[in-house]
Amino acid sequence: MELERIYEGKAKTLFKGPEENEVFIFFKDDTTAFDGKKKEVLKEKGEINLQITRYIFRYLEKNGIPTHYLKPVDERTILAKKVKILPVEFIIRNVAAGGLTKRLGIPEGTKLPNIILEYCYKSDEYGDPMINAYHVQAMGLASDKDLALASEYSFRINHLLKELFDKVGIELVDFKVEFGIDCEGKLVLADEISPDSCRLWDKKTSDKMDKDVFRRDLGDMVSKYKEVLKRLQEELND
Amino acid sequence: MELERIYEGKAKTLFKGPEENEVFIFFKDDTTAFDGKKKEVLKEKGEINLQITRYIFRYLEKNGIPTHYLKPVDERTILAKKVKILPVEFIIRNVAAGGLTKRLGIPEGTKLPNIILEYCYKSDEYGDPMINAYHVQAMGLASDKDLALASEYSFRINHLLKELFDKVGIELVDFKVEFGIDCEGKLVLADEISPDSCRLWDKKTSDKMDKDVFRRDLGDMVSKYKEVLKRLQEELND
Repeated sequence: MELERIYEGKAKTLFKGPEENEVFIFFKDDTTAFDGKKKEVLKEKGEINLQITRYIFRYLEKNGIPTHYLKPVDERTILAKKVKILPVEFIIRNVAAGGLTKRLGIPEGTKLPNIILEYCYKSDEYGDPMINAYHVQAMGLASDKDLALASEYSFRINHLLKELFDKVGIELVDFKVEFGIDCEGKLVLADEISPDSCRLWDKKTSDKMDKDVFRRDLGDMVSKYKEVLKRLQEELND
Repeated sequence: MELERIYEGKAKTLFKGPEENEVFIFFKDDTTAFDGKKKEVLKEKGEINLQITRYIFRYLEKNGIPTHYLKPVDERTILAKKVKILPVEFIIRNVAAGGLTKRLGIPEGTKLPNIILEYCYKSDEYGDPMINAYHVQAMGLASDKDLALASEYSFRINHLLKELFDKVGIELVDFKVEFGIDCEGKLVLADEISPDSCRLWDKKTSDKMDKDVFRRDLGDMVSKYKEVLKRLQEELND
């Protein structure tokens, strides 16, 4: 079957789906960091992220979060609703790491007294800069209603995922989610949730089980991702 | 009289005041930009900024905004309430310029469809990074109540200053304000409001009448500041 490519991302490729309102999403092994400056192909990463995303999206759907996920196609590809992605990343932080440490000097590992939600403008050209609700409004990036709902979903996703990861001995440090508007105008969780888009620390060993392993050359990233998948599989009895 | 220095800022020096809850604020001619990387002493700048700040703070006080300003001492010095400055800068933007253009690519001069309020963490070490209310809370930079009130004041100050500058043929593009808590726990406007902390464009000629003249080497900055002062003096009939 010859698929028509409609979008080439850094870690995923989108193809036209069987129906007008559907897309095939192909998970690549390409792994990038620092705005694409560091790049490697890490064998099996794509299919592991697909499986983790699939588990998590189904778990979130069961718990009332609408997502773009429809069904698996093969070990690299899912079928999803076609959505218009909001050009805003929603970042939730429970523990200080990454940007929070670099930008504000909060030591990595500091438990935050309150959950932090950040909005970033999705723009490779400008390096996904942090923005606030006034910028979203001025730039017309999302309606007030969609921004409020996506923010509420982000907090609920955090609550659900913290509970899930806690059960498998993993601390959810922070994560990034994206939302889209489907053909009926409904806001749904889109993109992926995987160790590419979350910071996950082993509760016992404090080992990093996420893309920081790649960013900081801390060893075999894919084996860490496999461990995350294995624990989720056991917990979700799949 | 030998004054006891209590704080040395980039553009102002604070000395112990005659009463426990008062400070003398000395306005320096030192002019800095780009986190202090560009620096010059521009004769008369200090006294002009003092006069502009004095006019504006008195105008705001009359219109219901409490400030730290008490009275002039000499052409370089005012007496002000001693306050604990919140380590948050409040930036209001009516027209795109500066950071909004550099960080988000909105062309300079774009009239914004809504007023933008930004919070920045006052930190020379981290370059005054933008933050949001969740960061303010997590870092304990201000109470929720003070943050909300300072935000409300910022919008009201914008409304009042836009009206004032409009009358003298000047467009208020954006500005930065700081707030402090006085000895009674009351939130008051502090620091200064001057062409060092505002972007002001001549409505007829579009000439810049603010620190961008210095940042971009656009000519004699002090003569522009004098023109702002002259127009305010005429309008406020002082």
